[in-house]
Amino acid sequence: MQRALSVSRVTGNRLTFPDWYQAVVREGDMAEVSPVRGSMIMKPWGYGVWERIQQTMDRRIKEMGVENCYFPLFIPLSFFAKEAEHVEGFAKEMAVVTHHRLKAVDGKLQPDPDAKLEEPLIVRPTSETIIGDAFSRWIKSHRDLPLKINQWANVVRWEMRTRLFLRTSEFLWQEGHTAHADREDALASTLEALEMYRDFSETVLAMPVVAGEKPENERFPGADNTYSIEAMMQDGKALQAGTSHYLGTSFARAQNIRFQGDSGELEYAHTSSWGTSTRMIGGVIMTHGDDDGLRLPPAIAPRQIVIVPMLRDKPEDAEVLAFGEALVKALNGQFALGEPIRAILDTKAQRSAEKRWNWVRKGAPIIVELGPRDVAAGQVSFMRRDDLRDGDKVKSQALSRDDFVAQAPALLASIQQTLFDQAKAMLDTNIRRDITTFEGLVEYFGAAAEDDEDTLAFKGWVRAPWSRPTGEALEAVVQKLKAQKLTLRNAPLDQPNSFGPCIFTGAAGVEEVLIGRAY
Amino acid sequence: MQRALSVSRVTGNRLTFPDWYQAVVREGDMAEVSPVRGSMIMKPWGYGVWERIQQTMDRRIKEMGVENCYFPLFIPLSFFAKEAEHVEGFAKEMAVVTHHRLKAVDGKLQPDPDAKLEEPLIVRPTSETIIGDAFSRWIKSHRDLPLKINQWANVVRWEMRTRLFLRTSEFLWQEGHTAHADREDALASTLEALEMYRDFSETVLAMPVVAGEKPENERFPGADNTYSIEAMMQDGKALQAGTSHYLGTSFARAQNIRFQGDSGELEYAHTSSWGTSTRMIGGVIMTHGDDDGLRLPPAIAPRQIVIVPMLRDKPEDAEVLAFGEALVKALNGQFALGEPIRAILDTKAQRSAEKRWNWVRKGAPIIVELGPRDVAAGQVSFMRRDDLRDGDKVKSQALSRDDFVAQAPALLASIQQTLFDQAKAMLDTNIRRDITTFEGLVEYFGAAAEDDEDTLAFKGWVRAPWSRPTGEALEAVVQKLKAQKLTLRNAPLDQPNSFGPCIFTGAAGVEEVLIGRAY
Repeated sequence: MQRALSVSRVTGNRLTFPDWYQAVVREGDMAEVSPVRGSMIMKPWGYGVWERIQQTMDRRIKEMGVENCYFPLFIPLSFFAKEAEHVEGFAKEMAVVTHHRLKAVDGKLQPDPDAKLEEPLIVRPTSETIIGDAFSRWIKSHRDLPLKINQWANVVRWEMRTRLFLRTSEFLWQEGHTAHADREDALASTLEALEMYRDFSETVLAMPVVAGEKPENERFPGADNTYSIEAMMQDGKALQAGTSHYLGTSFARAQNIRFQGDSGELEYAHTSSWGTSTRMIGGVIMTHGDDDGLRLPPAIAPRQIVIVPMLRDKPEDAEVLAFGEALVKALNGQFALGEPIRAILDTKAQRSAEKRWNWVRKGAPIIVELGPRDVAAGQVSFMRRDDLRDGDKVKSQALSRDDFVAQAPALLASIQQTLFDQAKAMLDTNIRRDITTFEGLVEYFGAAAEDDEDTLAFKGWVRAPWSRPTGEALEAVVQKLKAQKLTLRNAPLDQPNSFGPCIFTGAAGVEEVLIGRAY
Repeated sequence: MQRALSVSRVTGNRLTFPDWYQAVVREGDMAEVSPVRGSMIMKPWGYGVWERIQQTMDRRIKEMGVENCYFPLFIPLSFFAKEAEHVEGFAKEMAVVTHHRLKAVDGKLQPDPDAKLEEPLIVRPTSETIIGDAFSRWIKSHRDLPLKINQWANVVRWEMRTRLFLRTSEFLWQEGHTAHADREDALASTLEALEMYRDFSETVLAMPVVAGEKPENERFPGADNTYSIEAMMQDGKALQAGTSHYLGTSFARAQNIRFQGDSGELEYAHTSSWGTSTRMIGGVIMTHGDDDGLRLPPAIAPRQIVIVPMLRDKPEDAEVLAFGEALVKALNGQFALGEPIRAILDTKAQRSAEKRWNWVRKGAPIIVELGPRDVAAGQVSFMRRDDLRDGDKVKSQALSRDDFVAQAPALLASIQQTLFDQAKAMLDTNIRRDITTFEGLVEYFGAAAEDDEDTLAFKGWVRAPWSRPTGEALEAVVQKLKAQKLTLRNAPLDQPNSFGPCIFTGAAGVEEVLIGRAY
């Protein structure tokens, strides 16, 4: 399902991919732009998806032996100055609190000059510094290690060009932070988090990804190694959907996180951090959406089965509603994908055809239309959102009421699997491995003009050997790619045993790296 | 259980109530003061309690037909200027963001003058204004009403004197916001939320409260009516643990929230808002804590049954661990208080006596000590945290392994009930109804000097008739009370049919009001 340009059934217009995305978010009632620059309002359906993500991932985080905490929103400016690379990486985009009171002057409210903070406070863009400070107090001996904590929180990184879910100044995320006695244990924990993200993304979001290590230029500020999961969107661009960092001892040194080792000597801890955010929801939309709007994997759909009663203000309405309520009850008493089924009867005062299309646009996995004839026949007519149309015609299936209830768990599991399989097929068939020179790369992707960012042809990614240059040599490669609007994504964890020559320099290759356009 | 001054078994010192509170929070590993002025760090056990509160209350909020959303952290300054009373009430204590970038000047980081915001942003102290703005876009017709949303979020109100959980500059809370077609529906919704809070507090937190209406001077800025639940702490002071506001049409007028009524005319919506916060955790601590530390109601204890294995680095350790693991599995397969039991085997590398006392201080409801002899006898020896001691001696009970598993749900329910009953008895016996004059009030509570705030004798509350003065007459009463460090809490919803004369003015009483010292 490549989607460089598409006709939206939602609006009937021919849309660029970014416009299609915006339309899906809007018509799916997921979120809207807020009057606060760069911030969004997550509406019930969009926030419901986030709640599902939170609950599902939180279980996995806890299974890793990680405990949840909550750290302050504000970080003293001086904390940021401690880790030099870190401040360099974040200083450009942080919200700064300078006053703690307003004052009316000539009837106009303004910050009260008498309430200026001695030290400005930064609204956290990420919490390594404030959590590291706590770690320095909590960790005394090797018996305190490993220490693994996580928080679900809002963070702010000032952004000039924002896009709902994908890039907003404020976003919601989880950030895991761990401290270990040695490199080996810290690196294992970093990779354990990465693998959790990969599995979560594929199993829960039905979004296939490639897990790998980011090149040096894409590392988290202050990290020794940064790993990511990269998903391919329907326009062929990459979306970094989660990152995990091995921070070495640099944060421990900056913040004095030390422990008494077996030998009695004080040693610096090795730390890691890892995060995923509401950005994943943007990934889900761009992975599974179609011309009719959103398609939600059942594992994260706030409602999995929606029953739309066809009411006509007639006596038989009562029977339809009673049938529908009993159906919801029977469905919700069962488990699908390891959790109780989430079905509802939509009794809103609205025409049933309108309701049906709203649920299609919202991506509810199964939509049931229930009329007097269904009730009389004891049957259920339903649409599968993953397989909505035959050409232009909407497909509907019917099952006896009891068969529908009995098959519901398998139906939902099948929809989850179908969405994954479709996306996986797209990912696997759109990573070119036969391009071996930079010239070939440029030719394949084609020149990208300043103004066609939104209408680039679908290209997918190229996977090619490289010599993993560092420093200035790497910077030269990055700049060459940038001129083509290309980026290095990651070096997949899964590597072959031998490599051809470096696609950039012709030198001996040491690993394969993914190259593509990206969000 | 009155606790004006107490001897802490935790530290062995004679402590004032505030010092006892601090010691319980610290020794229970709930939270700590952060390096950020006025903010706290919620540690895993304290945050675990908040997670339990969130999950349990969230279900109740959803059962009320309320949907969760997420709104921006930042609110443009101009939004606050719209509702005059509202800004007056909050303007004194808000964090103001004025810059969006830092810059290094002479090697020192400071807000970049080139990145000054045109309009300052306020870190939300509460979200009526930004949510009302969304309501004005979302509400068009009476078919859009009622609209009921909620968010779980962090908020900031600058505080000079802070205390962990009770009063911090940043805190976590939920805020419900609803809009209705008329006063009757909005008021009913306001009271429905209040009743949900009352029931939640008593059933889940085991914390008895009095639900009632706040006097005019204690209303939320801009509200027509404010209702609260008030709990009595062990030092006799009142803690406002939740509030619900009927906002009339004042926010709707300020923000243009209008709908087309049946008549076709545009009408202003009637709105409500209601909130509870991490402050409830402070209430739980001051309601249930004892000389040994925290006592957590099983409904909110992150771990309800903790099994401490007594290990001696001997071959029988393996049997003890296997017995303990099987026991945890059997317990967690059962339900207590409507949810799966939360039991764990504590295998941390620490002496078992130390572990046991840590769990006592953390308030785990049931603590099991498991040694080789228990395993051999197939029995379980355990302590109930609600009934820990006989005099100075720690009480332990033993049951056969199978009986313990079978009785665990009933044991947990009994602990939940015992904690509530003890607190309820304290509340009921410490509301004086026989004081009828202001002089009597002053005499009963005794004069409070500036410096004895922390060591005031336990007095509880007085419930007395009053004439419900307003404006300046009310202000005079408030000032007279303030001089005695007394406050009006609320006028309980449950009122008698007739009233004696007003305790303040001698005029005809119109309702009874609660008077007491407060947090």
